[in-house]
Amino acid sequence: MALQKLTPQEQTEALARPELEGWSLVDGREAIKRTLTFKDFNAAFGFMTRVALYADKADHHPEWFNVYNRVEVTLATHDVQGLSVRDVELAKFINQIYHQ
Amino acid sequence: MALQKLTPQEQTEALARPELEGWSLVDGREAIKRTLTFKDFNAAFGFMTRVALYADKADHHPEWFNVYNRVEVTLATHDVQGLSVRDVELAKFINQIYHQ
Repeated sequence: MALQKLTPQEQTEALARPELEGWSLVDGREAIKRTLTFKDFNAAFGFMTRVALYADKADHHPEWFNVYNRVEVTLATHDVQGLSVRDVELAKFINQIYHQ
Repeated sequence: MALQKLTPQEQTEALARPELEGWSLVDGREAIKRTLTFKDFNAAFGFMTRVALYADKADHHPEWFNVYNRVEVTLATHDVQGLSVRDVELAKFINQIYHQ
């Protein structure tokens, strides 16, 4: 089955789930974003490395910006030009390891 | 000796060196930037990991954005509110491993 684009209602429902705490829609674009802060660069890049391993395995990659202890992540699905279940899954994974 | 801010002439000289090929000044800010592209995300993140190890050892960190195979790096030195020899050294290291 081809990857489906989330409907606006599905987006709203996904973002309301406790597992997606901290994520919000990007203005003017069908994407979600979250900013995460860590103790220092070492911790931030350690986090990024865990996400990178997940992302490359899932073949679904984040857009992200890092400066020192801060990481800004944006998720969207190129293939559907919007949000898909892959973004929800990656956002959940990010929250899981962020809260560890 | 405290870290010195590069003078405009030193900046120009540094950017003219072949080792700093591809780097340019950021508009409206004392910083340098370069965009690098790789075969895929795996190669891009492998590069970022090498830079991260260097950066954390040198205690001098990049600002960077990554999406899939593209990495946009910005370098500046917070302590001098501008460019220092640390940025030149990090830019040289980045070019070295990029050309490998």
